[in-house]
Amino acid sequence: MKKKNKKVNAAVLVIGNEILSGRTQDKNVIFIANWLNAKCGILVEEVRIIPDIKKKIVSNVLELSKKFNYVFTTGGIGPTHDDITSESISRAFKVRYEFHKEAYKILENYYGKSKFNDGRKKMAKMPKGSKLIYNPSSAAPGFLTKNVFSLPGVPSILNSMIENCKKYLIKGLKVHSTTLNLFTVESNISKQLGLIQNKYKKSVDIGSYPFFRLGKIGVSIVMRSTSKKKLHIVSRYIRSMVKLKNIELLKT
Amino acid sequence: MKKKNKKVNAAVLVIGNEILSGRTQDKNVIFIANWLNAKCGILVEEVRIIPDIKKKIVSNVLELSKKFNYVFTTGGIGPTHDDITSESISRAFKVRYEFHKEAYKILENYYGKSKFNDGRKKMAKMPKGSKLIYNPSSAAPGFLTKNVFSLPGVPSILNSMIENCKKYLIKGLKVHSTTLNLFTVESNISKQLGLIQNKYKKSVDIGSYPFFRLGKIGVSIVMRSTSKKKLHIVSRYIRSMVKLKNIELLKT
Repeated sequence: MKKKNKKVNAAVLVIGNEILSGRTQDKNVIFIANWLNAKCGILVEEVRIIPDIKKKIVSNVLELSKKFNYVFTTGGIGPTHDDITSESISRAFKVRYEFHKEAYKILENYYGKSKFNDGRKKMAKMPKGSKLIYNPSSAAPGFLTKNVFSLPGVPSILNSMIENCKKYLIKGLKVHSTTLNLFTVESNISKQLGLIQNKYKKSVDIGSYPFFRLGKIGVSIVMRSTSKKKLHIVSRYIRSMVKLKNIELLKT
Repeated sequence: MKKKNKKVNAAVLVIGNEILSGRTQDKNVIFIANWLNAKCGILVEEVRIIPDIKKKIVSNVLELSKKFNYVFTTGGIGPTHDDITSESISRAFKVRYEFHKEAYKILENYYGKSKFNDGRKKMAKMPKGSKLIYNPSSAAPGFLTKNVFSLPGVPSILNSMIENCKKYLIKGLKVHSTTLNLFTVESNISKQLGLIQNKYKKSVDIGSYPFFRLGKIGVSIVMRSTSKKKLHIVSRYIRSMVKLKNIELLKT
């Protein structure tokens, strides 16, 4: 994994009617976002969830692959008629949609020649020139086409494959974060917090999120930065404000 | 609630660094999608998750509000510096960002004059001409600007407000769905399923989703259609295929 001394970003494109219809709770976005930041210093900066419609997949893949360093698609690489991710990515990049020799061998070997039917063969068809992302759970590989990683929708399978994306990624600057949990309400600290954020707007991102814990209302202040030093300064700054206002801190 | 005898669609725009960073699991998309379809016959056809950056909120609100009948934004309407949804929507539609008289009164009354500080007052500022979405949990209202509904990010508060969106929505055709859970693998049925989908491609949407239950691998076949009759026909069709192939059905 090469290292780049600057921010590297990514988008996630979730392909699946089952997420849009409300049938299924997506669990892949949070997993990919955490893995990318923790292991690769890559920030997810946009997510889209779109239906299994070829035209929409094509236009979104093109748009996101131009705007971000990497795109991760989830879903639509299985054996059924609604699995159209590979074909759509081929169309997006105007490359042939054809059997990938190694993927074909992997799948033929996994299922055995006699059980390697058309549905299963379909999973070996990919955009020409794609690189494989090996699948230790169920054999069918994901693939990398240009800067687009295509992974399956089933969370347990996706999770088992993600480490195999690493060798293709350029590492960026990791975003560190620290959290202060205060027993107060947002409006009690919003003014001071805004002033602190304004002072450090270029280096630290401060988020404010209400919570309800131990029967009390509170606010989580989340600070995020590529600089540990700046994070420490801002954290101390906020702690002083908290002390001045006699706000109770939740010990974690 | 008026009724429209055709499909009505919507997009959800999740505004929040905490979702993109992987800190927080989004729960609003699945809730809004299910509510819209069940109660209003409205289909969510796209979701985007974007950071708390004004320029990005403006461009996404404009794009989605043109492409879809309705847009639901979640997050960014609280009292802190990172709550910039209202201001951004004002800018998107080129209307003033100002105090909404009724919202101001609601909040002043809720907090009491002496505790109605600047942070809390901020929650009464909205795009000029917005209509209020009342909030039975924590008073601060959401608002409707053109075809864009702005709701808070905290799921319990959003859930308590959603019924108050209903009066502004035009009802579309409800999408009915039925599911068959088969103890088989996708590749065993993918060919026949593809043929059936092709025959009914204009009226029924068939999705195929692997599952793992009672220690066995299976496939959920989800059929969705605005026509109950067509749904019944396709369901019977798939049941015959299942019988012919001696596939076990999971009784639910």
